[in-house]
Amino acid sequence: MKIIRSIVAMQAEARGIRQAGRRIGFVPTMGCLHEGHLALIRKARELADCVVVSIFVNPTQFGPQEDYTAYPRDLERDACLCSREGVEIVFHPDVAEMYPAGHGSVFVDEKELSAGLCGPFRPGHFRGVLTVVAKLFNIVQPDVAVFGQKDAQQARLVQEMVYDLNFPVQIVVMPTVREPDGLAMSSRNTYLSETERRQASCLYRALCRARELYDAGVRDSASLRAAMLATIAAAPAARVEYIEIVDVDRLKPLDVIAGKALVAICVRIGAARLVDNIVLDPSLCS
Amino acid sequence: MKIIRSIVAMQAEARGIRQAGRRIGFVPTMGCLHEGHLALIRKARELADCVVVSIFVNPTQFGPQEDYTAYPRDLERDACLCSREGVEIVFHPDVAEMYPAGHGSVFVDEKELSAGLCGPFRPGHFRGVLTVVAKLFNIVQPDVAVFGQKDAQQARLVQEMVYDLNFPVQIVVMPTVREPDGLAMSSRNTYLSETERRQASCLYRALCRARELYDAGVRDSASLRAAMLATIAAAPAARVEYIEIVDVDRLKPLDVIAGKALVAICVRIGAARLVDNIVLDPSLCS
Repeated sequence: MKIIRSIVAMQAEARGIRQAGRRIGFVPTMGCLHEGHLALIRKARELADCVVVSIFVNPTQFGPQEDYTAYPRDLERDACLCSREGVEIVFHPDVAEMYPAGHGSVFVDEKELSAGLCGPFRPGHFRGVLTVVAKLFNIVQPDVAVFGQKDAQQARLVQEMVYDLNFPVQIVVMPTVREPDGLAMSSRNTYLSETERRQASCLYRALCRARELYDAGVRDSASLRAAMLATIAAAPAARVEYIEIVDVDRLKPLDVIAGKALVAICVRIGAARLVDNIVLDPSLCS
Repeated sequence: MKIIRSIVAMQAEARGIRQAGRRIGFVPTMGCLHEGHLALIRKARELADCVVVSIFVNPTQFGPQEDYTAYPRDLERDACLCSREGVEIVFHPDVAEMYPAGHGSVFVDEKELSAGLCGPFRPGHFRGVLTVVAKLFNIVQPDVAVFGQKDAQQARLVQEMVYDLNFPVQIVVMPTVREPDGLAMSSRNTYLSETERRQASCLYRALCRARELYDAGVRDSASLRAAMLATIAAAPAARVEYIEIVDVDRLKPLDVIAGKALVAICVRIGAARLVDNIVLDPSLCS
């Protein structure tokens, strides 16, 4: 397995791989890999001939009060996991390589799908995400890129970017991988104390409660939200940032659920800001 | 020569060309081709194995009061010229192909190099330009793309976009091609009446006057600007939109010229909004 730190070298490598007729599968990450990432890597292996994983904690997607500095980093462990999963290249640039001084005035942004959910709480976040993903796509030149459903809004925005800007990349979104108690795998779970960790399963319990009511025929968002809030209230360390029920396409809030709906929740517990979601799909209704 | 109208077909074609190890040279245009465009096409032929010319009058780079509808279109003539120049593919999508309904919320934008010159007079213009160029790069997948120096701010912004977003494309900027009286070739020259056309050489005369003074040792922008305004005043149909002297890198206004400077002028004559520019380069000083 190669570890590449330079953009020019990565682009040359990608060009060689593609000219040899091999398909590149790409998993962009911020490192601190967990089973969720590994599921993405395995999917990329399945869909492509050569898997590239990027490990880059992207400063431009963190707000000034956010956890950029604290974000966990462990390249050695990550490289070991990647190698074990058959990754061919780890792309691991430093910040000055990705954002050279005196440049960086051009950006990719969006104003509709990013207007709700995490958008208002993280100004500039999705601009940072879309810009770095556009950069990474141009550097790694993947045929297919795999994202996690846990960050549903991010995945939807990347899909829309690929569609709107015509990137020649197929986007695949994989289901959330969960701990035994239902907590979605996340690098940020490492911020939780033992007590906080126990309470963190409240996000998943709230989502399950929403699905239960939905399966019982409840379709108004206010009722689902109220039930979810009541579930979270049982976890004293949890402070709800938002609970939103939106359509899966344009992420617009729904008063009444008709088609496919995304139920998304964001809760702060201690130093961690945790997100999770489920999709309610009428065609799968029991 | 092929004329391709579908994005998917163009992307498949580009992939095939690249996999065959042939370099793609790209010239994006809004059609109504003139000698300026042909110079770009010839350069692309020189630098690549296969030349793709796009012909697309991009609605998103026109303001509501601008000349989108009036902009001249003549595909048959353009195709004929392209064929004669050895162009292999003309990419000519319609608006619904490039901007399908219910999409288009993602965009590329910039806030520094686009802050001056044409930026304030054409709000949204450079967002439209950068977004469509990003789309075209992803569709045509060129190794090299050729732009004209006549639209200096656009060329600089595209260079910066390629740098900032790491597009694997080389940008080449070609000198402005001029009519015998110095008027820069432009599709918008067709808007000029005979009287207006005669007066339109005032842009070039003003630029030459600036170079004359610069060569004589004048370095303060105010003096150059004043002399240029006086030159334009001799053309009664001309209304100056701006005359700016900026550094060639970040396009910031210069009070005193030290390094390379861009002298840019924008004048309205009748229905036409005309731009032109020269670069003052101390290393080339007589």
